[in-house]
Amino acid sequence: MAAERVNIIHLLASPHGLTCRIPLAEKKIGYELEEVHKFRSSMATLEEVKESCKSLPVLIHNGKEIYEFRTVVEYIDEAWKSRSAFLPLDPYKRAQARYWFDFIDKEVNLILVINRQLVAISLFSAPSLVAWLWGLACDTEAAKKELVSTLKELEVELGDKPYFGGESLGLVDIVLLPHYAWFHTYERCADFCIQAHCPKLIGWAKQCLRKASASQCLPDPDEVYENAMKLKERVDEITPVVAIAKFFSRLASRCDSEHMLGDIFFGRLVGAEAWVSESPA
Amino acid sequence: MAAERVNIIHLLASPHGLTCRIPLAEKKIGYELEEVHKFRSSMATLEEVKESCKSLPVLIHNGKEIYEFRTVVEYIDEAWKSRSAFLPLDPYKRAQARYWFDFIDKEVNLILVINRQLVAISLFSAPSLVAWLWGLACDTEAAKKELVSTLKELEVELGDKPYFGGESLGLVDIVLLPHYAWFHTYERCADFCIQAHCPKLIGWAKQCLRKASASQCLPDPDEVYENAMKLKERVDEITPVVAIAKFFSRLASRCDSEHMLGDIFFGRLVGAEAWVSESPA
Repeated sequence: MAAERVNIIHLLASPHGLTCRIPLAEKKIGYELEEVHKFRSSMATLEEVKESCKSLPVLIHNGKEIYEFRTVVEYIDEAWKSRSAFLPLDPYKRAQARYWFDFIDKEVNLILVINRQLVAISLFSAPSLVAWLWGLACDTEAAKKELVSTLKELEVELGDKPYFGGESLGLVDIVLLPHYAWFHTYERCADFCIQAHCPKLIGWAKQCLRKASASQCLPDPDEVYENAMKLKERVDEITPVVAIAKFFSRLASRCDSEHMLGDIFFGRLVGAEAWVSESPA
Repeated sequence: MAAERVNIIHLLASPHGLTCRIPLAEKKIGYELEEVHKFRSSMATLEEVKESCKSLPVLIHNGKEIYEFRTVVEYIDEAWKSRSAFLPLDPYKRAQARYWFDFIDKEVNLILVINRQLVAISLFSAPSLVAWLWGLACDTEAAKKELVSTLKELEVELGDKPYFGGESLGLVDIVLLPHYAWFHTYERCADFCIQAHCPKLIGWAKQCLRKASASQCLPDPDEVYENAMKLKERVDEITPVVAIAKFFSRLASRCDSEHMLGDIFFGRLVGAEAWVSESPA
Protein backbone atom coordinates (compact mmCIF):
# COMPACT_ATOMS: atom_id res chain seq x y z
CA MET A 1 0.00 0.00 0.00
CA ALA A 2 1.34 3.42 -0.92
CA ALA A 3 2.11 5.78 1.94
CA GLU A 4 -0.80 7.91 2.99
CA ARG A 5 -0.66 11.67 2.59
CA VAL A 6 -2.54 13.66 5.17
CA ASN A 7 -2.52 17.46 5.21
CA ILE A 8 -4.39 19.81 7.42
CA ILE A 9 -4.79 23.53 6.83
CA HIS A 10 -6.21 25.70 9.56
CA LEU A 11 -6.14 29.17 11.03
CA LEU A 12 -3.62 29.71 13.78
CA ALA A 13 -5.10 28.74 17.17
CA SER A 14 -8.61 28.30 15.73
CA PRO A 15 -10.46 25.87 18.03
CA HIS A 16 -12.01 24.19 14.97
CA GLY A 17 -8.58 23.51 13.50
CA LEU A 18 -7.29 22.11 16.79
CA THR A 19 -10.37 19.91 17.05
CA CYS A 20 -9.27 18.27 13.79
CA ARG A 21 -5.63 17.84 14.85
CA ILE A 22 -6.18 16.14 18.22
CA PRO A 23 -7.91 13.03 16.76
CA LEU A 24 -5.12 12.64 14.17
CA ALA A 25 -2.52 12.78 16.94
CA GLU A 26 -4.55 10.42 19.14
CA LYS A 27 -4.75 7.88 16.31
CA LYS A 28 -1.03 8.40 15.64
CA ILE A 29 -1.61 9.47 12.04
CA GLY A 30 1.26 11.54 10.68
CA TYR A 31 0.21 14.73 8.89
CA GLU A 32 1.60 17.88 7.39
CA LEU A 33 0.30 21.04 8.92
CA GLU A 34 -0.23 24.39 7.29
CA GLU A 35 -1.21 27.13 9.69
CA VAL A 36 -2.68 30.17 8.04
CA HIS A 37 -1.63 33.46 9.59
CA LYS A 38 -3.98 35.67 7.60
CA PHE A 39 -4.66 38.01 10.47
CA ARG A 40 -0.99 38.74 10.91
CA SER A 41 -0.64 40.00 7.36
CA SER A 42 -1.71 43.56 6.86
CA MET A 43 -1.84 42.78 3.13
CA ALA A 44 -4.77 40.41 3.52
CA THR A 45 -7.97 42.01 2.37
CA LEU A 46 -11.13 41.54 4.37
CA GLU A 47 -12.57 39.44 1.59
CA GLU A 48 -9.54 37.12 1.64
CA VAL A 49 -9.75 36.71 5.38
CA LYS A 50 -13.47 36.04 5.20
CA GLU A 51 -13.08 33.49 2.41
CA SER A 52 -10.26 31.59 4.04
CA CYS A 53 -12.07 31.51 7.36
CA LYS A 54 -15.17 30.10 5.72
CA SER A 55 -13.47 27.07 4.23
CA LEU A 56 -11.00 26.30 7.03
CA PRO A 57 -10.09 23.88 8.51
CA VAL A 58 -9.66 21.45 5.64
CA LEU A 59 -8.27 17.91 5.80
CA ILE A 60 -6.70 16.53 2.63
CA HIS A 61 -6.36 12.76 2.65
CA ASN A 62 -4.56 11.33 -0.38
CA GLY A 63 -5.75 14.32 -2.39
CA LYS A 64 -9.38 14.16 -1.24
CA GLU A 65 -10.56 17.30 0.51
CA ILE A 66 -12.83 17.12 3.53
CA TYR A 67 -14.44 20.33 4.82
CA GLU A 68 -16.47 21.35 7.90
CA PHE A 69 -14.79 20.50 11.16
CA ARG A 70 -17.38 18.13 12.61
CA THR A 71 -17.38 16.23 9.32
CA VAL A 72 -13.57 16.09 9.43
CA VAL A 73 -13.56 14.63 12.96
CA GLU A 74 -16.11 11.95 12.09
CA TYR A 75 -14.20 11.20 8.88
CA ILE A 76 -10.98 10.65 10.86
CA ASP A 77 -12.86 8.31 13.19
CA GLU A 78 -14.34 6.32 10.32
CA ALA A 79 -11.40 6.27 7.87
CA TRP A 80 -8.99 4.92 10.52
CA LYS A 81 -11.55 2.70 12.22
CA SER A 82 -9.09 0.14 13.58
CA ARG A 83 -7.40 2.70 15.84
CA SER A 84 -8.94 4.08 19.07
CA ALA A 85 -12.56 5.14 18.42
CA PHE A 86 -14.00 8.47 19.56
CA LEU A 87 -17.62 7.46 19.33
CA PRO A 88 -19.15 4.58 21.33
CA LEU A 89 -20.95 1.78 19.49
CA ASP A 90 -24.37 2.25 21.08
CA PRO A 91 -26.57 4.53 18.91
CA TYR A 92 -28.00 6.44 21.89
CA LYS A 93 -24.57 7.08 23.41
CA ARG A 94 -23.35 8.22 19.98
CA ALA A 95 -26.31 10.61 19.80
CA GLN A 96 -25.48 11.99 23.25
CA ALA A 97 -21.85 12.60 22.27
CA ARG A 98 -22.97 14.34 19.06
CA TYR A 99 -25.45 16.47 21.02
CA TRP A 100 -22.74 17.73 23.38
CA PHE A 101 -20.35 18.27 20.48
CA ASP A 102 -22.97 20.54 18.94
CA PHE A 103 -23.69 22.20 22.30
CA ILE A 104 -20.02 23.14 22.76
CA ASP A 105 -19.75 24.40 19.20
CA LYS A 106 -22.73 26.66 19.76
CA GLU A 107 -22.36 27.70 23.39
CA VAL A 108 -18.64 27.84 24.16
CA ASN A 109 -17.63 29.06 20.76
CA LEU A 110 -16.62 32.66 21.33
CA ILE A 111 -13.51 33.71 19.53
CA LEU A 112 -13.90 31.22 16.74
CA VAL A 113 -16.88 33.00 15.33
CA ILE A 114 -14.84 36.16 15.49
CA ASN A 115 -12.19 34.37 13.50
CA ARG A 116 -14.73 33.35 10.91
CA GLN A 117 -16.50 36.65 10.58
CA LEU A 118 -13.89 39.03 11.96
CA VAL A 119 -16.33 41.00 14.04
CA ALA A 120 -18.30 38.18 15.51
CA ILE A 121 -22.01 38.40 15.15
CA SER A 122 -23.96 35.23 15.60
CA LEU A 123 -22.46 34.36 18.94
CA PHE A 124 -24.53 32.07 21.02
CA SER A 125 -22.83 32.73 24.34
CA ALA A 126 -21.25 35.52 26.31
CA PRO A 127 -21.62 38.19 23.61
CA SER A 128 -20.88 40.90 26.12
CA LEU A 129 -17.54 39.33 27.00
CA VAL A 130 -16.53 39.48 23.38
CA ALA A 131 -17.87 43.00 23.04
CA TRP A 132 -15.67 43.88 26.02
CA LEU A 133 -12.72 42.26 24.26
CA TRP A 134 -13.33 44.62 21.35
CA GLY A 135 -13.33 47.60 23.67
CA LEU A 136 -17.05 48.30 23.69
CA ALA A 137 -19.03 49.25 26.75
CA CYS A 138 -20.84 46.20 28.04
CA ASP A 139 -21.77 44.29 31.13
CA THR A 140 -18.70 42.13 31.70
CA GLU A 141 -20.20 40.63 34.87
CA ALA A 142 -23.22 39.32 32.98
CA ALA A 143 -20.94 37.93 30.28
CA LYS A 144 -18.80 36.07 32.80
CA LYS A 145 -21.90 34.62 34.46
CA GLU A 146 -23.13 33.38 31.09
CA LEU A 147 -19.87 31.65 30.26
CA VAL A 148 -19.50 30.09 33.72
CA SER A 149 -23.07 28.79 33.61
CA THR A 150 -22.38 27.06 30.26
CA LEU A 151 -19.18 25.52 31.62
CA LYS A 152 -21.02 24.32 34.74
CA GLU A 153 -23.51 22.48 32.52
CA LEU A 154 -20.54 20.70 30.99
CA GLU A 155 -19.18 19.83 34.46
CA VAL A 156 -22.49 18.10 35.23
CA GLU A 157 -22.23 16.10 32.00
CA LEU A 158 -18.63 15.13 32.86
CA GLY A 159 -19.69 13.86 36.29
CA ASP A 160 -17.05 11.61 37.84
CA LYS A 161 -15.75 10.22 34.57
CA PRO A 162 -12.08 10.91 33.74
CA TYR A 163 -13.08 11.97 30.19
CA PHE A 164 -16.36 12.96 28.60
CA GLY A 165 -15.83 9.85 26.49
CA GLY A 166 -15.66 7.70 29.66
CA GLU A 167 -12.35 5.92 30.18
CA SER A 168 -10.78 7.31 27.00
CA LEU A 169 -10.76 10.52 24.98
CA GLY A 170 -14.01 10.88 23.02
CA LEU A 171 -15.75 13.23 20.60
CA VAL A 172 -16.80 15.69 23.34
CA ASP A 173 -13.28 15.89 24.82
CA ILE A 174 -11.90 16.59 21.36
CA VAL A 175 -14.20 19.55 20.73
CA LEU A 176 -13.98 21.11 24.19
CA LEU A 177 -10.23 20.88 24.77
CA PRO A 178 -9.23 23.50 22.13
CA HIS A 179 -11.38 26.06 23.92
CA TYR A 180 -9.29 25.50 27.05
CA ALA A 181 -6.40 27.19 25.21
CA TRP A 182 -8.56 30.33 25.07
CA PHE A 183 -9.55 30.33 28.77
CA HIS A 184 -6.44 32.33 29.67
CA THR A 185 -7.43 35.04 27.17
CA TYR A 186 -10.96 35.29 28.57
CA GLU A 187 -9.63 35.38 32.12
CA ARG A 188 -7.11 38.08 31.32
CA CYS A 189 -9.56 40.18 29.34
CA ALA A 190 -12.32 40.02 31.91
CA ASP A 191 -10.23 39.63 35.07
CA PHE A 192 -11.68 36.45 36.53
CA CYS A 193 -10.64 32.89 37.28
CA ILE A 194 -12.53 30.05 35.60
CA GLN A 195 -10.97 27.47 37.93
CA ALA A 196 -12.58 29.13 40.95
CA HIS A 197 -15.99 28.43 39.40
CA CYS A 198 -15.36 25.16 37.56
CA PRO A 199 -12.54 23.27 39.32
CA LYS A 200 -13.59 19.87 37.93
CA LEU A 201 -13.48 21.12 34.37
CA ILE A 202 -9.99 22.52 34.82
CA GLY A 203 -8.96 19.21 36.41
CA TRP A 204 -10.31 17.40 33.35
CA ALA A 205 -8.37 19.71 31.00
CA LYS A 206 -5.13 19.20 32.90
CA GLN A 207 -5.59 15.44 32.79
CA CYS A 208 -6.20 15.58 29.02
CA LEU A 209 -3.02 17.60 28.59
CA ARG A 210 -1.00 14.79 30.13
CA LYS A 211 -1.73 12.94 26.87
CA ALA A 212 0.81 13.73 24.17
CA SER A 213 -1.93 13.88 21.52
CA ALA A 214 -3.49 16.83 23.31
CA SER A 215 -0.42 18.65 24.63
CA GLN A 216 1.40 18.61 21.29
CA CYS A 217 -1.57 20.20 19.49
CA LEU A 218 -2.68 22.88 21.92
CA PRO A 219 -0.98 26.26 21.56
CA ASP A 220 0.59 28.15 24.43
CA PRO A 221 -2.15 30.20 26.18
CA ASP A 222 0.10 33.29 26.20
CA GLU A 223 0.54 32.98 22.45
CA VAL A 224 -3.24 32.70 22.03
CA TYR A 225 -3.67 35.89 24.06
CA GLU A 226 -1.08 37.77 22.01
CA ASN A 227 -2.71 36.66 18.77
CA ALA A 228 -6.14 37.68 20.02
CA MET A 229 -4.74 41.13 20.75
CA LYS A 230 -3.21 41.31 17.25
CA LEU A 231 -6.54 40.29 15.76
CA LYS A 232 -8.19 43.02 17.81
CA GLU A 233 -5.75 45.60 16.42
CA ARG A 234 -6.47 44.41 12.91
CA VAL A 235 -10.21 44.80 13.50
CA ASP A 236 -9.71 48.24 15.02
CA GLU A 237 -8.21 49.32 11.69
CA ILE A 238 -11.45 48.60 9.88
CA THR A 239 -12.98 51.95 10.59
CA PRO A 240 -16.53 51.48 9.28
CA VAL A 241 -17.06 48.34 11.33
CA VAL A 242 -15.76 50.02 14.46
CA ALA A 243 -17.89 53.08 13.75
CA ILE A 244 -21.00 50.94 13.54
CA ALA A 245 -19.98 49.09 16.70
CA LYS A 246 -19.50 52.37 18.52
CA PHE A 247 -22.85 53.56 17.31
CA PHE A 248 -24.43 50.48 18.88
CA SER A 249 -22.48 51.22 22.00
CA ARG A 250 -23.92 54.73 22.19
CA LEU A 251 -27.40 53.44 21.40
CA ALA A 252 -27.06 50.97 24.26
CA SER A 253 -25.93 53.63 26.71
CA ARG A 254 -28.85 55.86 25.74
CA CYS A 255 -31.24 52.99 26.33
CA ASP A 256 -29.64 52.63 29.76
CA SER A 257 -29.42 48.90 29.35
CA GLU A 258 -25.98 47.56 28.79
CA HIS A 259 -27.31 44.14 27.89
CA MET A 260 -28.85 45.66 24.84
CA LEU A 261 -25.48 46.38 23.29
CA GLY A 262 -24.40 42.77 23.17
CA ASP A 263 -27.79 41.61 22.11
CA ILE A 264 -28.27 44.08 19.32
CA PHE A 265 -24.69 43.87 18.19
CA PHE A 266 -24.70 40.12 18.23
CA GLY A 267 -28.07 39.90 16.64
CA ARG A 268 -30.22 38.70 19.46
CA LEU A 269 -33.27 40.88 19.33
CA VAL A 270 -35.75 38.44 20.76
CA GLY A 271 -35.52 39.81 24.29
CA ALA A 272 -36.24 43.40 23.21
CA GLU A 273 -39.54 43.42 25.05
CA ALA A 274 -37.79 42.42 28.29
CA TRP A 275 -35.07 45.08 27.93
CA VAL A 276 -37.63 47.78 27.45
CA SER A 277 -39.66 46.73 30.47
CA GLU A 278 -36.52 46.30 32.59
CA SER A 279 -35.01 49.64 31.67
CA PRO A 280 -35.69 52.57 33.97
CA ALA A 281 -38.15 55.04 32.45
CA MET B 1 -39.28 -7.81 22.37
CA ALA B 2 -41.59 -5.12 23.72
CA ALA B 3 -43.16 -2.77 21.19
CA GLU B 4 -41.07 0.31 20.51
CA ARG B 5 -42.38 3.75 21.38
CA VAL B 6 -41.28 6.54 19.12
CA ASN B 7 -42.47 10.12 19.57
CA ILE B 8 -41.48 13.20 17.70
CA ILE B 9 -42.22 16.77 18.80
CA HIS B 10 -41.62 19.60 16.38
CA LEU B 11 -42.79 23.02 15.38
CA LEU B 12 -45.42 23.11 12.68
CA ALA B 13 -43.79 23.09 9.22
CA SER B 14 -40.29 23.55 10.63
CA PRO B 15 -37.82 22.14 8.08
CA HIS B 16 -35.75 20.66 10.92
CA GLY B 17 -38.76 18.76 12.23
CA LEU B 18 -39.64 17.48 8.77
CA THR B 19 -36.03 16.39 8.29
CA CYS B 20 -36.50 14.09 11.29
CA ARG B 21 -39.84 12.68 10.12
CA ILE B 22 -38.86 11.68 6.58
CA PRO B 23 -36.24 9.10 7.65
CA LEU B 24 -38.70 7.53 10.11
CA ALA B 25 -41.28 7.20 7.34
CA GLU B 26 -38.67 5.90 4.89
CA LYS B 27 -37.62 3.19 7.37
CA LYS B 28 -41.30 2.45 8.05
CA ILE B 29 -41.01 3.18 11.77
CA GLY B 30 -44.35 4.07 13.32
CA TYR B 31 -44.30 7.16 15.52
CA GLU B 32 -46.57 9.52 17.40
CA LEU B 33 -46.35 13.12 16.31
CA GLU B 34 -46.85 16.22 18.37
CA GLU B 35 -46.83 19.42 16.36
CA VAL B 36 -46.32 22.53 18.42
CA HIS B 37 -48.35 25.53 17.29
CA LYS B 38 -46.76 28.07 19.63
CA PHE B 39 -46.94 30.89 17.13
CA ARG B 40 -50.66 30.48 16.74
CA SER B 41 -51.31 31.14 20.40
CA SER B 42 -51.38 34.76 21.40
CA MET B 43 -50.91 33.55 24.98
CA ALA B 44 -47.41 32.26 24.33
CA THR B 45 -44.82 34.65 25.69
CA LEU B 46 -41.74 35.41 23.65
CA GLU B 47 -39.63 33.54 26.18
CA GLU B 48 -41.80 30.42 25.81
CA VAL B 49 -41.59 30.56 22.05
CA LYS B 50 -37.82 31.06 22.16
CA GLU B 51 -37.32 28.19 24.62
CA SER B 52 -39.47 25.70 22.75
CA CYS B 53 -37.85 26.62 19.45
CA LYS B 54 -34.40 26.06 20.92
CA SER B 55 -35.04 22.49 21.99
CA LEU B 56 -37.19 21.33 19.07
CA PRO B 57 -37.34 18.96 17.27
CA VAL B 58 -36.94 16.16 19.78
CA LEU B 59 -37.16 12.41 19.15
CA ILE B 60 -38.15 10.22 22.08
CA HIS B 61 -37.30 6.56 21.56
CA ASN B 62 -38.49 4.27 24.36
CA GLY B 63 -38.27 7.20 26.77
CA LYS B 64 -34.79 8.33 25.67
CA GLU B 65 -34.69 11.88 24.36
CA ILE B 66 -32.54 12.81 21.39
CA TYR B 67 -32.04 16.49 20.54
CA GLU B 68 -30.49 18.47 17.65
CA PHE B 69 -31.90 17.57 14.27
CA ARG B 70 -28.72 16.33 12.59
CA THR B 71 -28.07 14.12 15.62
CA VAL B 72 -31.64 12.80 15.40
CA VAL B 73 -31.27 11.89 11.72
CA GLU B 74 -27.99 10.04 12.28
CA TYR B 75 -29.51 8.33 15.34
CA ILE B 76 -32.43 7.06 13.24
CA ASP B 77 -29.98 5.74 10.66
CA GLU B 78 -27.90 3.95 13.29
CA ALA B 79 -30.62 2.70 15.66
CA TRP B 80 -32.53 1.01 12.82
CA LYS B 81 -29.47 -0.07 10.89
CA SER B 82 -31.04 -3.08 9.17
CA ARG B 83 -33.50 -0.89 7.22
CA SER B 84 -32.53 1.29 4.23
CA ALA B 85 -29.39 3.31 5.09
CA PHE B 86 -29.08 7.03 4.40
CA LEU B 87 -25.31 7.17 4.56
CA PRO B 88 -23.02 5.21 2.23
CA LEU B 89 -20.39 2.88 3.74
CA ASP B 90 -17.31 4.60 2.30
CA PRO B 91 -15.89 7.16 4.80
CA TYR B 92 -15.18 9.78 2.10
CA LYS B 93 -18.67 9.50 0.61
CA ARG B 94 -20.12 9.76 4.13
CA ALA B 95 -18.05 12.92 4.68
CA GLN B 96 -19.33 14.40 1.40
CA ALA B 97 -22.96 13.71 2.40
CA ARG B 98 -22.37 15.31 5.81
CA TYR B 99 -20.71 18.31 4.18
CA TRP B 100 -23.74 18.97 1.94
CA PHE B 101 -26.10 18.36 4.85
CA ASP B 102 -24.29 21.14 6.70
CA PHE B 103 -24.20 23.34 3.59
CA ILE B 104 -27.97 23.13 3.19
CA ASP B 105 -28.55 23.78 6.87
CA LYS B 106 -26.45 26.92 6.67
CA GLU B 107 -27.22 28.25 3.19
CA VAL B 108 -30.80 27.33 2.39
CA ASN B 109 -32.05 27.73 5.91
CA LEU B 110 -34.18 30.88 5.76
CA ILE B 111 -37.43 30.70 7.60
CA LEU B 112 -36.25 28.10 10.04
CA VAL B 113 -33.92 30.52 11.77
CA ILE B 114 -36.85 32.87 12.00
CA ASN B 115 -38.75 30.11 13.71
CA ARG B 116 -35.96 29.59 16.19
CA GLN B 117 -35.30 33.22 16.99
CA LEU B 118 -38.56 34.84 15.93
CA VAL B 119 -36.91 37.74 14.14
CA ALA B 120 -34.20 35.93 12.30
CA ILE B 121 -30.74 37.25 12.75
CA SER B 122 -27.90 34.94 11.93
CA LEU B 123 -29.13 34.07 8.49
CA PHE B 124 -26.54 32.75 6.15
CA SER B 125 -28.41 33.27 2.91
CA ALA B 126 -30.81 35.65 1.29
CA PRO B 127 -31.24 37.94 4.32
CA SER B 128 -32.84 40.58 2.18
CA LEU B 129 -35.56 38.20 1.04
CA VAL B 130 -36.47 37.57 4.63
CA ALA B 131 -36.25 41.27 5.42
CA TRP B 132 -38.69 41.80 2.58
CA LEU B 133 -40.97 39.17 4.07
CA TRP B 134 -41.00 41.24 7.27
CA GLY B 135 -41.98 44.33 5.35
CA LEU B 136 -38.66 46.13 5.41
CA ALA B 137 -37.17 47.99 2.48
CA CYS B 138 -34.54 45.83 0.84
CA ASP B 139 -33.15 44.69 -2.43
CA THR B 140 -35.38 41.74 -3.31
CA GLU B 141 -33.57 41.18 -6.60
CA ALA B 142 -30.25 40.66 -4.84
CA ALA B 143 -31.89 38.31 -2.38
CA LYS B 144 -33.42 36.20 -5.14
CA LYS B 145 -30.07 36.00 -6.92
CA GLU B 146 -28.44 34.80 -3.72
CA LEU B 147 -30.97 32.04 -3.17
CA VAL B 148 -30.91 30.90 -6.81
CA SER B 149 -27.11 30.78 -6.79
CA THR B 150 -27.14 28.50 -3.72
CA LEU B 151 -29.73 26.24 -5.32
CA LYS B 152 -27.69 26.08 -8.53
CA GLU B 153 -24.70 24.83 -6.51
CA LEU B 154 -26.92 22.04 -5.27
CA GLU B 155 -28.03 21.23 -8.84
CA VAL B 156 -24.37 20.74 -9.77
CA GLU B 157 -23.92 18.36 -6.82
CA LEU B 158 -27.05 16.44 -7.87
CA GLY B 159 -25.73 16.01 -11.40
CA ASP B 160 -27.56 13.25 -13.26
CA LYS B 161 -28.28 11.11 -10.23
CA PRO B 162 -31.97 10.52 -9.39
CA TYR B 163 -31.28 11.39 -5.73
CA PHE B 164 -28.42 13.15 -3.95
CA GLY B 165 -27.92 9.78 -2.26
CA GLY B 166 -27.48 8.12 -5.68
CA GLU B 167 -30.08 5.47 -6.49
CA SER B 168 -31.92 5.89 -3.19
CA LEU B 169 -32.90 8.64 -0.76
CA GLY B 170 -29.90 9.76 1.29
CA LEU B 171 -28.92 12.21 4.01
CA VAL B 172 -28.75 15.19 1.61
CA ASP B 173 -32.18 14.48 0.11
CA ILE B 174 -33.64 14.25 3.62
CA VAL B 175 -32.36 17.68 4.66
CA LEU B 176 -33.14 19.53 1.42
CA LEU B 177 -36.62 18.23 0.75
CA PRO B 178 -38.33 20.04 3.69
CA HIS B 179 -37.13 23.37 2.27
CA TYR B 180 -39.02 22.57 -0.93
CA ALA B 181 -42.24 23.03 1.05
CA TRP B 182 -41.18 26.65 1.64
CA PHE B 183 -40.31 27.43 -2.00
CA HIS B 184 -43.92 28.44 -2.71
CA THR B 185 -43.74 30.99 0.14
CA TYR B 186 -40.50 32.51 -1.16
CA GLU B 187 -41.89 32.62 -4.70
CA ARG B 188 -45.12 34.26 -3.59
CA CYS B 189 -43.38 36.78 -1.33
CA ALA B 190 -40.78 37.80 -3.87
CA ASP B 191 -42.73 37.18 -7.08
CA PHE B 192 -40.39 34.81 -8.90
CA CYS B 193 -40.30 31.22 -10.12
CA ILE B 194 -37.57 28.93 -8.80
CA GLN B 195 -38.31 26.30 -11.46
CA ALA B 196 -37.37 28.76 -14.21
CA HIS B 197 -33.87 28.96 -12.71
CA CYS B 198 -33.41 25.45 -11.32
CA PRO B 199 -35.53 23.01 -13.33
CA LYS B 200 -33.44 19.98 -12.37
CA LEU B 201 -33.85 20.67 -8.67
CA ILE B 202 -37.62 20.96 -9.01
CA GLY B 203 -37.58 17.72 -11.02
CA TRP B 204 -35.68 16.06 -8.20
CA ALA B 205 -38.18 17.33 -5.60
CA LYS B 206 -41.16 16.08 -7.61
CA GLN B 207 -39.54 12.65 -7.98
CA CYS B 208 -38.91 12.51 -4.20
CA LEU B 209 -42.55 13.38 -3.58
CA ARG B 210 -43.63 10.29 -5.51
CA LYS B 211 -42.28 8.37 -2.50
CA ALA B 212 -44.90 7.99 0.24
CA SER B 213 -42.28 8.66 2.94
CA ALA B 214 -41.74 12.15 1.56
CA SER B 215 -45.25 13.06 0.43
CA GLN B 216 -46.92 12.04 3.70
CA CYS B 217 -44.53 14.23 5.75
CA LEU B 218 -44.36 17.41 3.70
CA PRO B 219 -47.02 20.03 4.47
CA ASP B 220 -49.16 21.67 1.86
CA PRO B 221 -47.25 24.68 0.41
CA ASP B 222 -50.34 26.91 0.77
CA GLU B 223 -50.57 26.01 4.44
CA VAL B 224 -46.89 26.87 4.89
CA TYR B 225 -47.51 30.26 3.28
CA GLU B 226 -50.51 30.96 5.52
CA ASN B 227 -48.55 30.03 8.61
CA ALA B 228 -45.62 32.21 7.57
CA MET B 229 -48.04 35.11 7.27
CA LYS B 230 -49.48 34.36 10.73
CA LEU B 231 -45.96 34.27 12.13
CA LYS B 232 -45.30 37.62 10.47
CA GLU B 233 -48.40 39.11 12.14
CA ARG B 234 -47.24 37.80 15.51
CA VAL B 235 -43.83 39.41 15.01
CA ASP B 236 -45.41 42.68 13.92
CA GLU B 237 -47.05 42.85 17.35
CA ILE B 238 -43.66 43.02 19.05
CA THR B 239 -43.28 46.75 18.74
CA PRO B 240 -39.72 47.28 20.03
CA VAL B 241 -38.27 44.74 17.63
CA VAL B 242 -40.12 46.25 14.71
CA ALA B 243 -39.01 49.71 15.79
CA ILE B 244 -35.37 48.62 15.76
CA ALA B 245 -35.84 46.92 12.41
CA LYS B 246 -37.38 50.08 10.98
CA PHE B 247 -34.51 52.10 12.32
CA PHE B 248 -32.11 49.85 10.42
CA SER B 249 -34.29 50.29 7.39
CA ARG B 250 -33.97 54.07 7.60
CA LEU B 251 -30.25 53.81 8.26
CA ALA B 252 -29.90 51.70 5.14
CA SER B 253 -31.84 54.13 2.98
CA ARG B 254 -29.71 57.02 4.22
CA CYS B 255 -26.55 55.08 3.39
CA ASP B 256 -28.02 54.64 -0.09
CA SER B 257 -27.03 51.00 -0.04
CA GLU B 258 -29.91 48.65 0.31
CA HIS B 259 -27.64 45.69 0.85
CA MET B 260 -26.55 47.25 4.07
CA LEU B 261 -29.94 46.74 5.64
CA GLY B 262 -29.90 43.00 5.36
CA ASP B 263 -26.30 42.80 6.33
CA ILE B 264 -26.53 44.97 9.38
CA PHE B 265 -29.85 43.56 10.40
CA PHE B 266 -28.70 40.03 9.97
CA GLY B 267 -25.40 40.68 11.55
CA ARG B 268 -23.02 40.51 8.63
CA LEU B 269 -20.79 43.49 9.06
CA VAL B 270 -17.69 42.08 7.43
CA GLY B 271 -18.28 43.75 4.11
CA ALA B 272 -18.72 47.22 5.59
CA GLU B 273 -15.63 48.54 3.84
CA ALA B 274 -17.02 47.47 0.48
CA TRP B 275 -20.42 49.06 1.10
CA VAL B 276 -18.84 52.33 2.00
CA SER B 277 -16.64 52.40 -1.08
CA GLU B 278 -19.52 51.30 -3.32
CA SER B 279 -21.96 53.88 -2.00
CA PRO B 280 -22.21 57.17 -3.86
CA ALA B 281 -20.61 60.02 -1.92
